[in-house]
Amino acid sequence: MDNLEYQEGRTELNALGQFALIRRLTEGFETHHKSTVKAAGDDCAVIADENSTAGRSWLQCVQTMAEGVDFDMMYTPLKHLGYKAVAIALSNIAAMNGTPRQIEVSLAVSNRYSLEALEELYAGIRLCCDRYDVDLVGGSIGSSRSGMVVTVSAVGVVDASMITYRSGAKLHDLICVSGDLGSAYSGLLVLEREKVTYQANPDFQPDLDSYDYVLERYLKPEPRLDIVKSLAEKDVVPTSMIDVGDGLASELLQLCRNSHCGCEVYEEHIPIDYQTSRVCSEMSKNMLPISNALNGGGDYELLFTIDQKDYEKVKGMEGVHIIGHITEEGAPAVMVTPQNTTITLVAQGFRNN
Amino acid sequence: MDNLEYQEGRTELNALGQFALIRRLTEGFETHHKSTVKAAGDDCAVIADENSTAGRSWLQCVQTMAEGVDFDMMYTPLKHLGYKAVAIALSNIAAMNGTPRQIEVSLAVSNRYSLEALEELYAGIRLCCDRYDVDLVGGSIGSSRSGMVVTVSAVGVVDASMITYRSGAKLHDLICVSGDLGSAYSGLLVLEREKVTYQANPDFQPDLDSYDYVLERYLKPEPRLDIVKSLAEKDVVPTSMIDVGDGLASELLQLCRNSHCGCEVYEEHIPIDYQTSRVCSEMSKNMLPISNALNGGGDYELLFTIDQKDYEKVKGMEGVHIIGHITEEGAPAVMVTPQNTTITLVAQGFRNN
Repeated sequence: MDNLEYQEGRTELNALGQFALIRRLTEGFETHHKSTVKAAGDDCAVIADENSTAGRSWLQCVQTMAEGVDFDMMYTPLKHLGYKAVAIALSNIAAMNGTPRQIEVSLAVSNRYSLEALEELYAGIRLCCDRYDVDLVGGSIGSSRSGMVVTVSAVGVVDASMITYRSGAKLHDLICVSGDLGSAYSGLLVLEREKVTYQANPDFQPDLDSYDYVLERYLKPEPRLDIVKSLAEKDVVPTSMIDVGDGLASELLQLCRNSHCGCEVYEEHIPIDYQTSRVCSEMSKNMLPISNALNGGGDYELLFTIDQKDYEKVKGMEGVHIIGHITEEGAPAVMVTPQNTTITLVAQGFRNN
Repeated sequence: MDNLEYQEGRTELNALGQFALIRRLTEGFETHHKSTVKAAGDDCAVIADENSTAGRSWLQCVQTMAEGVDFDMMYTPLKHLGYKAVAIALSNIAAMNGTPRQIEVSLAVSNRYSLEALEELYAGIRLCCDRYDVDLVGGSIGSSRSGMVVTVSAVGVVDASMITYRSGAKLHDLICVSGDLGSAYSGLLVLEREKVTYQANPDFQPDLDSYDYVLERYLKPEPRLDIVKSLAEKDVVPTSMIDVGDGLASELLQLCRNSHCGCEVYEEHIPIDYQTSRVCSEMSKNMLPISNALNGGGDYELLFTIDQKDYEKVKGMEGVHIIGHITEEGAPAVMVTPQNTTITLVAQGFRNN
């Protein structure tokens, strides 16, 4: 009906990754306000209040989840979806070393959803707000032709001296990651497997008990604001930080690209949960847990770099793993295997370089 | 595939209006932060900086537009769509008597859209940013299963003493509206008529020249930040304000509901453009221009109330019309016709009481 499909000289969106696409679309945009400290290109925008006596900055981010792409209603409880949509937005605030304060939720929903369904969604939103002491301060609800699109915009605060950008990593800095990686993607693999089985036989009752950890990691991730707090308590300001929404490989490449450096991480130090390994071996003998960690995504852990002087403070920190170090500009981003083989990291998926 | 449609005791979303739906979903949410001055229930959230020396507050809003509901790609140029999505968000800032500073854009797009199409969209976003001196500071782009959903979140500033809520109208205050009403909806009617004709005969070439004003009103509305500025120059702080995204009737009812008052407006004072009247008479002899003004929506003018002491300052203001006054609590919201008949106003559409 419209002519969108038939354009001449058409460039498909998936020819570019998300980051390249955003860069391309926003090049030529200039910022004019003194209060705009950091525009596009990091986990959040940074907005300064020139009248603030406290040297405090505001963090601002917005994140959209679309049905059929970012979540499948067949196996996503609406309460979990509400929780997750908020958690992902708060994770962006955490990645700037900030504390979230307020969120707004904007929904586009089809008439397939009832009031009771949206109440479930909001119960999850509320649970996450309560857990992380965040105020819901507004939003909007409109119709969509099909499915649901949930957008959460979050506001946070951070002392200007403690903001962590993607661009601050320096030569010899240590690379750290929180929690474990690849578990959220393993949870998704289990859910997708059960969905296929159910579609073949609707009498099938999935037995998901033994996958509780990876399922929770996928369906209900937590923003690592506890790590932000622990770092502050130990007086450590990371030199750079990003959240692991995508796989570790893609996020490492982002840090390196923004910080103009290379990196070396050690496979044996990359934290992987036992359940992640078990799911991989069930799925296929060719599926390696380290692949899920590098390329899976959805873990929302924090990836950050610290100055070597902070090594003693960080090394015993609960839930923090030192996985490598930053190398010089021009060096590649690589992973060293236990057999001492060096593998160059490649970003996979839409959100890549 | 999922069980959303088959719930027992299901309440359809359109059984409630947007405002009632939001109230229902967010009841029970409490706010905890001192910085949260105003949560849900107005055009923007108001966030105070307790460290600000200037008594300045931040305004925050988020607005979603969905393809097939809020825009039709058959007759919406992508550049206009980008402009409009930003303009609507800025209109929310204007409705709080604020000045917009930053926006973020979050997109969910299907692969029907090409890079070139998104470049058009961003050209419109940029045009509106440049025109209103607003910085684009971030956002995200993700996939959608079908169509496009555009969310714009906007940040603005306002002196705390000058914030205008929906709740401040007082007995005998004068009711004012900017610009003219019903023209955007008339533009939509023309576009829908041409679409039907085109679908019946694809060789048909629509002649839209004589509808330039109403088409522009629908496709490329402007946030009335000029009115905010004029009011400040004349040292007038409205007692209440809302933007006319929906029809005048619905917005008047919102003001009255929030301010605990009634209102009386005079049909002959409601500003209607000549082209709006012409479109109505072309469409049907039963279509009255005043109906488009009351129920049409999409004009994004400002509806506000002023204290009677400010009458002299406002009466000659360009583009501002005094259309009535506030009546006591418990009184209805009514329109008085030139024949002195009193009509009780009823909100139509999704965004009602």
